[in-house]
Amino acid sequence: MIVEILCVGTEILLGNIVNTNAKFLSEELANLGLSVFFQTVVGDNPERLESALDIALNRSDIVITTGGLGPTQDDLTKEIIAKAMGKKLVENAKAKEMLEERLHSFRLVITENNYKQAFLPEGATPLYNNHGTAPGAIVENNGKRVIMLPGPPSEMTLMFKESVLPYLKTLSDDVIVSRTVKMIGIGESTMASMADDLINSENPTVAPYAKPFESQLRVTAKAKSEAEALGLIEPMVDKIKERFEDYIYSYDVDESLEAAVVKLLKANKLHIACAESCTGGMLASTIINVPGSSDIINESFVTYSNEAKEKRLGVPHDILEKYGAVSEEVASKMAEGVALVSAADIGIGITGIAGPDGGTKDKPVGLVYIGLYYKGNTVVKKLTRKGNRLTIRQGTVMTALDMIRRAVG
Amino acid sequence: MIVEILCVGTEILLGNIVNTNAKFLSEELANLGLSVFFQTVVGDNPERLESALDIALNRSDIVITTGGLGPTQDDLTKEIIAKAMGKKLVENAKAKEMLEERLHSFRLVITENNYKQAFLPEGATPLYNNHGTAPGAIVENNGKRVIMLPGPPSEMTLMFKESVLPYLKTLSDDVIVSRTVKMIGIGESTMASMADDLINSENPTVAPYAKPFESQLRVTAKAKSEAEALGLIEPMVDKIKERFEDYIYSYDVDESLEAAVVKLLKANKLHIACAESCTGGMLASTIINVPGSSDIINESFVTYSNEAKEKRLGVPHDILEKYGAVSEEVASKMAEGVALVSAADIGIGITGIAGPDGGTKDKPVGLVYIGLYYKGNTVVKKLTRKGNRLTIRQGTVMTALDMIRRAVG
Repeated sequence: MIVEILCVGTEILLGNIVNTNAKFLSEELANLGLSVFFQTVVGDNPERLESALDIALNRSDIVITTGGLGPTQDDLTKEIIAKAMGKKLVENAKAKEMLEERLHSFRLVITENNYKQAFLPEGATPLYNNHGTAPGAIVENNGKRVIMLPGPPSEMTLMFKESVLPYLKTLSDDVIVSRTVKMIGIGESTMASMADDLINSENPTVAPYAKPFESQLRVTAKAKSEAEALGLIEPMVDKIKERFEDYIYSYDVDESLEAAVVKLLKANKLHIACAESCTGGMLASTIINVPGSSDIINESFVTYSNEAKEKRLGVPHDILEKYGAVSEEVASKMAEGVALVSAADIGIGITGIAGPDGGTKDKPVGLVYIGLYYKGNTVVKKLTRKGNRLTIRQGTVMTALDMIRRAVG
Repeated sequence: MIVEILCVGTEILLGNIVNTNAKFLSEELANLGLSVFFQTVVGDNPERLESALDIALNRSDIVITTGGLGPTQDDLTKEIIAKAMGKKLVENAKAKEMLEERLHSFRLVITENNYKQAFLPEGATPLYNNHGTAPGAIVENNGKRVIMLPGPPSEMTLMFKESVLPYLKTLSDDVIVSRTVKMIGIGESTMASMADDLINSENPTVAPYAKPFESQLRVTAKAKSEAEALGLIEPMVDKIKERFEDYIYSYDVDESLEAAVVKLLKANKLHIACAESCTGGMLASTIINVPGSSDIINESFVTYSNEAKEKRLGVPHDILEKYGAVSEEVASKMAEGVALVSAADIGIGITGIAGPDGGTKDKPVGLVYIGLYYKGNTVVKKLTRKGNRLTIRQGTVMTALDMIRRAVG
């Protein structure tokens, strides 16, 4: 079945916002084994919306729209969808109920205008909006389907997961199940060439994905039941595990590297402390973004100046003088020092040149040392990263998290 | 003139990447006063690309394509564009020169295959690729124009700014000049209603924009010369300044709030130190992302545990006991303590409940206190933020930066 994504919103055409809705829907639909051949964005203009909708219905089986359901524009979009699908716009009793419940939960007084949101194309199935007020809807006619979703991503993604996903699954006799293997420390092209034979597999399929600073393999099986699909997936995941074990940090598509690291430290009852120079608190902040990180981190230091490195972490003055702040020796002393002063099991010390200025021939922009102290040993990793100040710092944080995972795991 | 953006790339349709190219181009075109009525995404498939291109050329004057110029797909896309524009595909001498120069600069051996990248629709103007190898091109016929750009954002954005922007400007007798006024601490709807009369202006136009945690007004004038356009813009910017002075942190669209704050502190020769609990280093990291921030920050502390707040910052034990870690009193002591121990002019203390757990009826998730010490005075701001753990923390960082700006400015 061919699906087209049609996003309605002048703010996208003006470049005010990035179209994350299209990305989210495309990814979800790909996971279901449905083909998306086109994404279209059109503004809040009736003629152009009608024309875009006609084109989409002509070349696709299902059109998923986002946006244009707000209190000021809802009539318009819904009228046009109704027209394109050959339906009248009528008050939908179930949508009205949903709407009253939602407005009540927001303690809002219901105005006549609100009730316009309960009007849907005749025979449409309303979709509950757990994050806003306007219901979505599924409209079917002559084998074509339009699924109308709200524009705000928080409303749209929840409605998709709660209502649209189960609906789309009923359209196929097959069950599609995916499993994502997440890796760090290996580039996408290396991963893909190492998995070359697996990528040629037909059911399950294996597809490589590059994400910022990490790589993924997604295994997808199509079968008559979930159990059967899992039966196809598991041996393939085992093969991937055997080949890439060292790089794999999670088999859960929603688990971030930092969440995996926090879980690992929790399980091992370990505490960590960071001493950061060029990353300036980004590693600590990334760890602390994981709920419950207070179990594994009490404190951390941003020691940007040499003086702070000496005073807070006890990095010897002569080592800073002799090797310079950006050196293996200083990274090592920072890691040991922060573990000691914070009484942490693991100490991380990061020092580097994030640019754009401050680079020399010997110590260019992108040179970073990450020290890791654990169980009486200190290791230092030297990075030579490309990119801008932010991406050098972000990549450093990811490598530091990877080092922690490998040291403990 | 109507422009359509046509992005070619199966990876966008699979949801592997967000279409930032479309956003970039839309924003740039809006700044030029050009109307974008549709954005379309199509995969690397000849029939569907041809059909999308035909639809686009039918409803628009200029079609800007991105992607599909890579070494494996270039023939395909260029052939289809040539066909749609009624041109033959021929070797372009200037494109060949560009290509050889680029491959030479990458120290790459030139293969026969490389030379395919020098083939363009007959009569096309090649566009130099300062970041990659494949040239872009402008193809004109019968009043229609196709501008082919590469897919990687680093190549595409540079080529657009260097070659496409000057070209598009020649298509109009008018000069379009924009000025963006960036504000913090005021919501978009409040800003828009306060600027209601200005937003109705015709030349210059005034348009409100909501960005994460900030609001902007963009003033755009159309005139026969840049000087004339600036003459229209300046009185309007003055009006905005008068009305919103307190909220304005920059008149430079590319200047971030943190960059404005670092500039302000530098100009006043002030040093800052941060003590962060729930933000966990995010404020320090944000400040340190500004090049040259070493002039204004020597060190900072992540004091996540109560013990760290006592030990590093000297927050009195009985205050922590009496008021709890998330309190006005503790934020105030953290700010004063960090300024003292770091010998900084400004001290910031942040403590709050970022969730998802840990909230109570009295102290719900989203409750954050930000203390600011400066010149012997301490002020504390109480926030009750909505959102998830990350957005609560990000919003807190923006408010802290705003407080610094207001305290010093």
